[in-house]
Amino acid sequence: MKKISDSTISRLSKYYRTLGRLIAQKVKTVSSDEIAEIDGVTSAQVRKDLSFFGTFGKRGLGYSTADLQHNIGKILGLFKKWNVALVGVGNIGHALVDYQEFKKQGFEIKLLLDNDENKIGTKVGDLEIKSFSDAPTHLEDEKIQIAIVAVPANVAQKVVNSLTDAGVRAILNFAPLSLKVPDGVMIKNENMSIELEALSYFLTNRRK
Amino acid sequence: MKKISDSTISRLSKYYRTLGRLIAQKVKTVSSDEIAEIDGVTSAQVRKDLSFFGTFGKRGLGYSTADLQHNIGKILGLFKKWNVALVGVGNIGHALVDYQEFKKQGFEIKLLLDNDENKIGTKVGDLEIKSFSDAPTHLEDEKIQIAIVAVPANVAQKVVNSLTDAGVRAILNFAPLSLKVPDGVMIKNENMSIELEALSYFLTNRRK
Repeated sequence: MKKISDSTISRLSKYYRTLGRLIAQKVKTVSSDEIAEIDGVTSAQVRKDLSFFGTFGKRGLGYSTADLQHNIGKILGLFKKWNVALVGVGNIGHALVDYQEFKKQGFEIKLLLDNDENKIGTKVGDLEIKSFSDAPTHLEDEKIQIAIVAVPANVAQKVVNSLTDAGVRAILNFAPLSLKVPDGVMIKNENMSIELEALSYFLTNRRK
Repeated sequence: MKKISDSTISRLSKYYRTLGRLIAQKVKTVSSDEIAEIDGVTSAQVRKDLSFFGTFGKRGLGYSTADLQHNIGKILGLFKKWNVALVGVGNIGHALVDYQEFKKQGFEIKLLLDNDENKIGTKVGDLEIKSFSDAPTHLEDEKIQIAIVAVPANVAQKVVNSLTDAGVRAILNFAPLSLKVPDGVMIKNENMSIELEALSYFLTNRRK
């Protein structure tokens, strides 16, 4: 398979959601023009993104919303269940445990890790917070595939090193800095300021 | 000024961060190739994104990291201070109040609004939670320019309607659905599943 760019993958996530909304509105078929319009890209882009993965839809008839959503979900691996560990149970951590969307998409938080003696042994929802010093054992017991790192910036690299040493291959990082990982590991950064910066740009540049 | 795409703006946010890290490492000049490599885009893309806004750097000499960062920050409106209201003070809301990056980038949360009688009048950090039913007055008093909406999905559209009626022109939405806003208002959706889906794709498609 060709190397697919990150931006293609994040657009597929968008299309997947758009299709879900159309299905909820009982829309049966959709054109690349319509998807493009809703998601703010060109229709050529929509067709190109999909073409990496095969031929969907029929020329002149558009796409079946249900089939296309199913196919994109399969491409993204969304029908699998992923076991997720959350490292660092502060405010962001608590918010993420409650974030219903994760579970809906198949990302289930099965393990909470922290190094704060006052938190270890307490519960958030149904999950008990375990000690980060025993991370390798817990990661293995819970068959964790993805780790979400929500720890302070100054310890984030150390935490990520321990996780990759323990065999974690996919990490979502909330700490506001770039972290290094070995080959064969993917790390994505969640930066909540980026969308705000688009708003700042809009407010700065709009016509008065 | 030409219409600039959202993806250009979000790449500028990335370049801005990358330059900040280079400056911290005492790097004085950088080429578009180097920026491209760090941010996972092509160097042609970097040059094109910047070309919308003027001519930066010198042919063959690259960009001064400090000058380019300053210029991008100016384009994004980051040297202004933006007054932000947070609507819905649940777990995500608490996490956002504590999220240091916002303030660093000039986004200051000045107003907390909720409709829960048990929360109204209590404090988070230095800020007292005010009643959403008095939103128009509070928004005006605090000169709010941007609202962050972190309320349950089933009330999100109603909340957004009240905010735009009260004159808010820029909204960051954490509720997991698409909301409608009038012309002249920008809404951005923060969806924390999207990065996880890229990880899911990676784990699904990597060579074993």
